[in-house]
Amino acid sequence: MEQENHNNNNCTNDKESACISSVLPGWFSEISPLWPGEAHSLKVEKILFQGKSDYQNVMVFQSSTYGKVLVLDGVIQLTERDECAYQEMITHLPLCSIPNPKKVLVIGGGDGGVLREVSRHSSIEQIDICEIDKMVVEVSKQFFPDVAVGYEDPRVNLHIGDGVAFLKAVPAGTYDAVIVDSSDPIGPAQELFEKPFFETVARALRPGGVVSTQAESIWLHMDIIENIVTNCRQIFKGSVNYAWTTVPTYPSGMIGFMLCSTEGLEVDFKNPVNLIENDEIHSKTLPPLKFYNFEIHKASFALPSFAKRVIESKGN
Amino acid sequence: MEQENHNNNNCTNDKESACISSVLPGWFSEISPLWPGEAHSLKVEKILFQGKSDYQNVMVFQSSTYGKVLVLDGVIQLTERDECAYQEMITHLPLCSIPNPKKVLVIGGGDGGVLREVSRHSSIEQIDICEIDKMVVEVSKQFFPDVAVGYEDPRVNLHIGDGVAFLKAVPAGTYDAVIVDSSDPIGPAQELFEKPFFETVARALRPGGVVSTQAESIWLHMDIIENIVTNCRQIFKGSVNYAWTTVPTYPSGMIGFMLCSTEGLEVDFKNPVNLIENDEIHSKTLPPLKFYNFEIHKASFALPSFAKRVIESKGN
Repeated sequence: MEQENHNNNNCTNDKESACISSVLPGWFSEISPLWPGEAHSLKVEKILFQGKSDYQNVMVFQSSTYGKVLVLDGVIQLTERDECAYQEMITHLPLCSIPNPKKVLVIGGGDGGVLREVSRHSSIEQIDICEIDKMVVEVSKQFFPDVAVGYEDPRVNLHIGDGVAFLKAVPAGTYDAVIVDSSDPIGPAQELFEKPFFETVARALRPGGVVSTQAESIWLHMDIIENIVTNCRQIFKGSVNYAWTTVPTYPSGMIGFMLCSTEGLEVDFKNPVNLIENDEIHSKTLPPLKFYNFEIHKASFALPSFAKRVIESKGN
Repeated sequence: MEQENHNNNNCTNDKESACISSVLPGWFSEISPLWPGEAHSLKVEKILFQGKSDYQNVMVFQSSTYGKVLVLDGVIQLTERDECAYQEMITHLPLCSIPNPKKVLVIGGGDGGVLREVSRHSSIEQIDICEIDKMVVEVSKQFFPDVAVGYEDPRVNLHIGDGVAFLKAVPAGTYDAVIVDSSDPIGPAQELFEKPFFETVARALRPGGVVSTQAESIWLHMDIIENIVTNCRQIFKGSVNYAWTTVPTYPSGMIGFMLCSTEGLEVDFKNPVNLIENDEIHSKTLPPLKFYNFEIHKASFALPSFAKRVIESKGN
């Protein structure tokens, strides 16, 4: 199999199209050093967009069975068929855990899907978003109208720029919730997995405020998760929890989230107090929730024993 | 992409090796009409076994990052890295839902992994297994000793033969629990998804007995699941439930189970009464549980809204 060693290369080089043509012709194959030895492939009907922004390669293709697909640096960010799981869970897990959230900040999330979910909450008055790459915003508005619909909410303020710098400039205690919708810790999102970043998030939150961050898969990245948990336990003095959801087109078919709160009014993430399902506004302006509900919220914190042993041992 | 149409073919033809060489060379790619337009691939270090039994193609390979892999008719049945999730959940969900299970029947499950999990329960006196394909048993004993270890329990009685015929010959009311560890409903397992089969299972169970069956993925096969749920609600007059677990190497990264009980003592599957974690025997003879615990048992019944709407509408 020596002749196939090029398959071990990350697709995130200059020619992203190499992921399509050289590995599995007619298919897009997601191959990365973050998940060596495995690849998820989707059959491609048509490539709709390929561009290179200041930060990453951006591609959109029409797949045979998952609708349109957004790819950044060779890694699938969302497909129309399963994006509901990720967007709804990363958003409603934090926002349904506190009563009456009013000010929310989204870091990353340029596709607008998290904004769409935040906008279901009628209590919210201000939705700030800081996305580093404006090409992601533009491409989403062009190709994913059902995702980018989040931008149509008049409460949304879009800032194109670095999330860390944005957070540092914000007055302490500004937000009820921060949602960090990042890509993997290789590339532009790397800083968003490090301790100084979590410190700036904690500072920007009010006492008893909450943060939700993309936190990889327990099947693939317990080392990264251990590190994040250790950092979060040092910084977030309210509570620190790990939850997860199924997402078929993410590596290992799942993704996790860190749910943390700052010192203040206690937040019991496992027992949501703000039931979005009862919030009337979302039924008028958006289609119903596809994935999230009260039971799946509570269930998402249950961990397989192998992960529980590691996560709970980190200085709880 | 016309030249790639052969990729749409199921790998389950005579030359299973075609799955290795033609799709993603040096990798095993799982392509099937059951999940069109997507493929999961594992990098192959070495093919350890290839054979054709009376029922199916059987292959074992050493993967780069998932340990050894068992493949039947081109479909991954288990990998050493993630088999714990499936085996522990399909077994302990039913057995931990009733007090003191004594007689258990496994249909399929020739690899022995379900037997290994059943054997953790000290209350059990008799473990029957009916597997149609003796090559699966032999191959598992040769290549997967940590899975086939289930056969070493003296309570196990192995029957090689057709599960439906076996069930018909059993006196009514024999078993406390039946576990149907089948492959997909294409090939030798097809009958195990049909109504007459569920009727024979119900007949073999004592009143208030339980069955657990492999029941596909809510992301891929809601049509199959709807059908199974409808059948089960007609046949199992105790309770009918759907649960699921993450399994990275199964299509869509998850798999579901039907958990049903016959009329009799009520079984509340969502509140386990038989806590295997407290059962001392398993710590002496087997390594600890890797996946299953009390919280993940309860959580596994929480369904995403899109699935809940369909499953709960089926004549509950």
